[in-house]
Amino acid sequence: MKLDVALPQHQYTLFIERGALKQVGEWAKTLWKPQKIAIITDDTVKSLYGEQVVENLSKAGFDVSVFSITPGEASKSFDSAIEAYTFLAEQGLTRSDGVLALGGGVVGDLAGFVASTYLRGIHFLQVPTTLLAQVDSSIGGKTAVNTPVAKNMVGTFAQPDGVLIDADVLQTLEPRRVREGIAEIVKSAAIADIDLWKKLTSLENEEELLEQVDELILASCNVKRKVVEEDELDNGNRLILNFGHTIGHAIEATAGYGVVTHGEGVAIGMVQMNRIAEEKGLTPKGTTEELKEMLVKFHLPISHTPWNEEELYEALTHDKKARGNQIKTIILEEIGKARIHTIDTEEMHDYLQV
Amino acid sequence: MKLDVALPQHQYTLFIERGALKQVGEWAKTLWKPQKIAIITDDTVKSLYGEQVVENLSKAGFDVSVFSITPGEASKSFDSAIEAYTFLAEQGLTRSDGVLALGGGVVGDLAGFVASTYLRGIHFLQVPTTLLAQVDSSIGGKTAVNTPVAKNMVGTFAQPDGVLIDADVLQTLEPRRVREGIAEIVKSAAIADIDLWKKLTSLENEEELLEQVDELILASCNVKRKVVEEDELDNGNRLILNFGHTIGHAIEATAGYGVVTHGEGVAIGMVQMNRIAEEKGLTPKGTTEELKEMLVKFHLPISHTPWNEEELYEALTHDKKARGNQIKTIILEEIGKARIHTIDTEEMHDYLQV
Repeated sequence: MKLDVALPQHQYTLFIERGALKQVGEWAKTLWKPQKIAIITDDTVKSLYGEQVVENLSKAGFDVSVFSITPGEASKSFDSAIEAYTFLAEQGLTRSDGVLALGGGVVGDLAGFVASTYLRGIHFLQVPTTLLAQVDSSIGGKTAVNTPVAKNMVGTFAQPDGVLIDADVLQTLEPRRVREGIAEIVKSAAIADIDLWKKLTSLENEEELLEQVDELILASCNVKRKVVEEDELDNGNRLILNFGHTIGHAIEATAGYGVVTHGEGVAIGMVQMNRIAEEKGLTPKGTTEELKEMLVKFHLPISHTPWNEEELYEALTHDKKARGNQIKTIILEEIGKARIHTIDTEEMHDYLQV
Repeated sequence: MKLDVALPQHQYTLFIERGALKQVGEWAKTLWKPQKIAIITDDTVKSLYGEQVVENLSKAGFDVSVFSITPGEASKSFDSAIEAYTFLAEQGLTRSDGVLALGGGVVGDLAGFVASTYLRGIHFLQVPTTLLAQVDSSIGGKTAVNTPVAKNMVGTFAQPDGVLIDADVLQTLEPRRVREGIAEIVKSAAIADIDLWKKLTSLENEEELLEQVDELILASCNVKRKVVEEDELDNGNRLILNFGHTIGHAIEATAGYGVVTHGEGVAIGMVQMNRIAEEKGLTPKGTTEELKEMLVKFHLPISHTPWNEEELYEALTHDKKARGNQIKTIILEEIGKARIHTIDTEEMHDYLQV
């Protein structure tokens, strides 16, 4: 399956197919002439797929090297970025060469940032290997590194030349990491795709979802595509993709990163946000219940303890989405349709009550 | 005087006027609504103009803060960038706020990089305070930081919302730093503006040049504007701006940065490059002599000792302009007209002979 992303400056295609990783060389050849490719990956993904991808790309005529980081959020740092720049320079990559990001969100964000700033930008490809990255971070062109002060504080908008998605790689992913991705699929459906929501509702359980995951990845990416095509630089409606994220990020941050995953934070954040919006009469009655049922079916959490309202409020107002005295929240007008709802930052206290 | 720069994604105006720094607040107000402005500058410029600029911007309704670096190339580092990001976050700058770069090339490159990557890009203004920055680095949208491995290895293409050029500030600049800028004006004339060349020829000496410097800044920026409008992302003809730079960079690097200034390196590089091109019959006889006379008139060097051919060759082939086994050099078809001339990297040995 294919999905074209057409941005004003750049057009590229998502190629979604089981087993596609075994054709990565052929795929790259359709996009790039033979040249140097530096793979940026992490140690876990490297041990699983590194050799195979290197061989495959080499066979297709590319001159391949591999730069690998320690898995985890801590590697999305300037230290890693500088090591990567140095590696690219040592390998002699010029502006006519390229980077291939092979991994999850951390690898994709870091590799995208490095590629888009090394020599003021070289081409890159995304080969996401987690469900979360497949449905979320590999589309949309946001790259990022963390600073000691805040997550994702620095980054660029930079689009890859192509994205290859092979759902077979999910077989080597921990269930908890797979569920992270499911949370984002549920979010995509909730904010902008009632048909996808119905589809998810019709599924019996996680197993059935995974059997049809290609189709769900495509639908979820398609939601993101539409939003990003309209607002690439995140100045307007792109914010609806953040449904559940403001509270979710605060939960992640206060729990300590890794204790609650990004997807789990989003799941809890959506339920919390929606429950209060429902109480305030902004969202139709019953939607929170629907949302909860959906998340529970796919083994996602819908609440978190301990719940420290003050701590969450603090974390949240430090979030970059806060604009002066107001904060833009995302609420559901109905399942399948989200909108931005600007409130006084103070009112956020209401949304944090349990 | 004004000069409009029209790039596909972004249009902005250079405002060139003596005493303009005293109106910086009014000028900024024509571009931005009242908001937070973080000035990025260096300690020298801060001590000369900091207070005045802060007062002026504050009076115009902006909420102003100042981040200052140690003057010099060593500050164009990731360490400085991370300090700057942290400062912007502490000051609470959001994507609707902006950065004002007040200083020379180092400040402009660093501030542009920081602004274009903080929160994935916030708006910025350039107020260049050296002649070199006024005619060169504040137009064209190249931002940069150095890595331990190479100068300008990392950066972005990012355009400011406006550039304010006040030639009065050159009065506080060391003569040697002023001459750096003159070298770039001479280069602009040589590569693309015969009228500017004639104008420069008609000038008696440096003093006379400085009396008319506004007009020369405008003409020089106009050369760069035309080239950049045609090739913003440096994939083609923008390279002609590098006349004299390949050898110039190598001289800078091997002499140790600061021993030979950028402009001095470029002056020597232009003469050397042109002399060999003339010997090879690629450039009309007599142009090197013309070039030398011009540079000498403005107290710029036309040679360098010691001249270590092997060291220069080494430095040069590590330069990022080298593409595989070939290197793109810039030669003059005649004074006022440059073209790209691709040679085998090995042939560069010829161009380094004295």
